[in-house]
Amino acid sequence: MASPEIEALTQALSRIPGLGPRSARRAVLHLLKKREAALVPLLTALGAVEERLETCSTCGNIDTANPCAICADPRRDAGALCVVEEVADLWALERSRLFPGRFHVLGGRLSALEGVRPEDLTIDALVRRIEGGGVDEVVLAMNATLEGQTTAHYLAERIERFPVRVTQLAHGLPVGGELDYLDEGTLAQALRARRPVV
Amino acid sequence: MASPEIEALTQALSRIPGLGPRSARRAVLHLLKKREAALVPLLTALGAVEERLETCSTCGNIDTANPCAICADPRRDAGALCVVEEVADLWALERSRLFPGRFHVLGGRLSALEGVRPEDLTIDALVRRIEGGGVDEVVLAMNATLEGQTTAHYLAERIERFPVRVTQLAHGLPVGGELDYLDEGTLAQALRARRPVV
Ligand SMILES: [Zn+2]
Ligand SMILES: [Zn+2]
Repeated sequence: MASPEIEALTQALSRIPGLGPRSARRAVLHLLKKREAALVPLLTALGAVEERLETCSTCGNIDTANPCAICADPRRDAGALCVVEEVADLWALERSRLFPGRFHVLGGRLSALEGVRPEDLTIDALVRRIEGGGVDEVVLAMNATLEGQTTAHYLAERIERFPVRVTQLAHGLPVGGELDYLDEGTLAQALRARRPVV
Repeated sequence: MASPEIEALTQALSRIPGLGPRSARRAVLHLLKKREAALVPLLTALGAVEERLETCSTCGNIDTANPCAICADPRRDAGALCVVEEVADLWALERSRLFPGRFHVLGGRLSALEGVRPEDLTIDALVRRIEGGGVDEVVLAMNATLEGQTTAHYLAERIERFPVRVTQLAHGLPVGGELDYLDEGTLAQALRARRPVV
């Protein structure tokens, strides 16, 4: 029924998580009806992001600049490094506005099941950052899953030879819970009560 | 936390109905992580649509061509005209694939409350289309709301002087129901059982 262009747009939108085919059609209709107020701004914003998209070569964050806005911000405490599994986790922590330091994105978690080994993550780069000096505390902010905790223990061992305080998010996270799905209150509490890794 | 470009994209997406701020952030993250598989195709599709977007000067449908694909399709029965309130209703009927004719989009419904009068809708254009000849049946596919039914009655009176069969969707639509929200089964039944306006 719709033209190939509109069909292609509906399909591109329906592949976004959270937008099924039905909501994608509604979204398309909204964009078509509000050309100047919705379609053009979205097109412009998307184009600007696409043009400048980069992965921060320091921390692994995705941003429109490299180094990313967090790594480039002199007001951020360079002495505190929060290690997360994914960019989504970094964003979740940033939304809580509770962590004044910088980040390190591992790009996943160790998993025997999925065959993810230390060399598949940015662990060597993390060690080099700590080795480079200036880091006082490393917060291991892995998910409260078996694999997340295994990763945290592995990291703690790799880091223990450096003169840094290694902490992890307080338990109290729901078992099996993933950072990116937590409400900010729970996240805030877990961050405030972070404790040294035994 | 995020760059102005990413913030602008999040805001543009969060203004789409059905995507709140939270799902917009997830959508952005997905797009950033899947640059080639998600961001670029969406950007391309959006650009293609934006470039060619038009309102069909015959029926009022929104498409990437004028006349729209439906008006331009010689296989569609030009003798049957289905009058709908909004483009969303046209799309809902098209999804059901049950109506072989063409459409006329009013651009709303008569409303004393909202001050929508006949001259605010494309009613004169509808009358001219019927006057032009070749139309055997006009299906009034208004919403089953008070305003929709008022509009249908008004249209029936405006059209009665022409030698066309004027029908409306069978009742059986839930009271207060809006076409665009109906499942296709209900819609199909209502269309099949359409009856002459008394
Ligand atoms: Zn960075
Ligand atoms: Zn048309």
